[in-house]
Amino acid sequence: MKISIIELKEKIKKLLQNMSEVNANIVADYIVWAEMTGLITQGIIKLSGTEPVQKIIPESEIKIERETKVSALLNGGKNPAMVVSKKATDIAIQKAKEVGMSIVGVRNIFSSNGSQGYYVEQIAKNDLIGIMCSRSPGAVSAFGSIDPLFGTNPIGYAFPTDNEPIVFDAATSAMTFYGLIIAKSKGEKIPVGIATDKNGKPTTNPADVIDDGALAAFGNSYKAEGLSMLVELLSGPLVNGAFLDFKTFDKEWGATIIAIDPNILTDVKIFKKNCSEFVSTIRNSRTLGQIRIPNDKTRKNYKTAVESGLIDIDDAIYNEVFG
Amino acid sequence: MKISIIELKEKIKKLLQNMSEVNANIVADYIVWAEMTGLITQGIIKLSGTEPVQKIIPESEIKIERETKVSALLNGGKNPAMVVSKKATDIAIQKAKEVGMSIVGVRNIFSSNGSQGYYVEQIAKNDLIGIMCSRSPGAVSAFGSIDPLFGTNPIGYAFPTDNEPIVFDAATSAMTFYGLIIAKSKGEKIPVGIATDKNGKPTTNPADVIDDGALAAFGNSYKAEGLSMLVELLSGPLVNGAFLDFKTFDKEWGATIIAIDPNILTDVKIFKKNCSEFVSTIRNSRTLGQIRIPNDKTRKNYKTAVESGLIDIDDAIYNEVFG
Repeated sequence: MKISIIELKEKIKKLLQNMSEVNANIVADYIVWAEMTGLITQGIIKLSGTEPVQKIIPESEIKIERETKVSALLNGGKNPAMVVSKKATDIAIQKAKEVGMSIVGVRNIFSSNGSQGYYVEQIAKNDLIGIMCSRSPGAVSAFGSIDPLFGTNPIGYAFPTDNEPIVFDAATSAMTFYGLIIAKSKGEKIPVGIATDKNGKPTTNPADVIDDGALAAFGNSYKAEGLSMLVELLSGPLVNGAFLDFKTFDKEWGATIIAIDPNILTDVKIFKKNCSEFVSTIRNSRTLGQIRIPNDKTRKNYKTAVESGLIDIDDAIYNEVFG
Repeated sequence: MKISIIELKEKIKKLLQNMSEVNANIVADYIVWAEMTGLITQGIIKLSGTEPVQKIIPESEIKIERETKVSALLNGGKNPAMVVSKKATDIAIQKAKEVGMSIVGVRNIFSSNGSQGYYVEQIAKNDLIGIMCSRSPGAVSAFGSIDPLFGTNPIGYAFPTDNEPIVFDAATSAMTFYGLIIAKSKGEKIPVGIATDKNGKPTTNPADVIDDGALAAFGNSYKAEGLSMLVELLSGPLVNGAFLDFKTFDKEWGATIIAIDPNILTDVKIFKKNCSEFVSTIRNSRTLGQIRIPNDKTRKNYKTAVESGLIDIDDAIYNEVFG
């Protein structure tokens, strides 16, 4: 079904009446954005299931536990990840504008940050470079281990250009944990060679992986394992949060945002011009098929939604959430 | 043959008599370290071939072109990469200690930085987190293109622990450019599925790849292409250097170093303890084979050399350089 953007936001906000108006707006904006871009795993489905956003009862307010001119550490108080990450993003932007670069850590947030792309794009729209990574409970084996050591650990970044920012966002695992859950619920197999069961035996059954098994890092690559370790270290130990934790989903989830003002190393006007040229050089390079720059598809979906004022919503999920 | 560490360093310094004593020491230390760790592609071979380090004629002194409390941009004046990167590393360490984090860019260096691990380990030994990336001339295709867009673009990082730092260092390409040259000179083929010739046709002939062909990103993965793009953007446009340049090797090579003092987000003692626990948890996890944490092998080689005072050197390369 198609629904207007405005109507969808109002419907979401009605479900979020236990939150402050400010927080309800933040959560609704994120969910509407996810539906507009086609990232439906981050959309209204977040309002359903066993842990819907509107049922989250935070432990406390968000607190700034440490702060310097270049940094802040937020204790999320188990508030919804979107609310905590929005605040962290805003602080990172403000500090980077003031002193040239910043790092903001968040810990003790409720569940996943979802799309890193959402937050880093906001940073890039302020003429800053944004890099963000988040850790999640252990699900990925590495370095010869058969244990689920690292989280699916997404990393995202965005760079400003003269046009739309360059945006990249990906899990460092071969597939997302949500992808496993979807495959299990549909009774589907997962691809060969990307996962093992709890005894380290290769499996294509998503249930075997969820049950103390492990995903591979992307490309089954040692280098991807190294990238996942970087994400785990930056958004676990560095933010005083949990790390290499595969026993429970209750432990702390963390994230880290870095913002850099290009002006401290170059001239931001030249930088944005060069980043625009960067994109056009890739887009105009030779191909035997099609050039697909990261974020092309989500941006196209988003523009289509903006132009029509309408979002195409999955009927079944809509009925479950609002029916 | 085996040679004492002290003797090797003296022999190298004799070849570097056209440099200042300080710079000769920096270059010799790097080359000796490379031989000690077994990274022979970064060792005394750098003193041979068509562009030996001792024959480099810099354009100018290294100049700081921009500077803030958190940042510096160095114009390397086509000085040897080790000299410029050592200076950049020292500045990054000093600034991060003063204000909590820093970013130092270098551009216009002569040829490759070589091992990012060497520099980030020095940062970690100062109780800081070090992240470094470098771009090199275009050699890697991406996003559906058949052109060599990105460099082999290595990324390295290091984290302090209560023992040895955690160190990771890898090219974002399926293999290094130097690996191509070695394979070509030995008349060997490269693995199937990691490279194309200048027309985008898959090839296992290294000469086809060197001749305007392209390597794949590691794991042949879209996500690795995204990581390579991050490296290219940070160490190309951000440092006012060349980017997506595949026409010539004469253009500018750049690099970017980020240093973070863990104290700004947590307590460095707790952080180092947690990073130590991080390593031991992985090392003690279940395996069906062997746990291999990044840098294990190079560290073992290094320790063996320190303990014996001797380095095992390739006879042929030794004779070429010193014969």
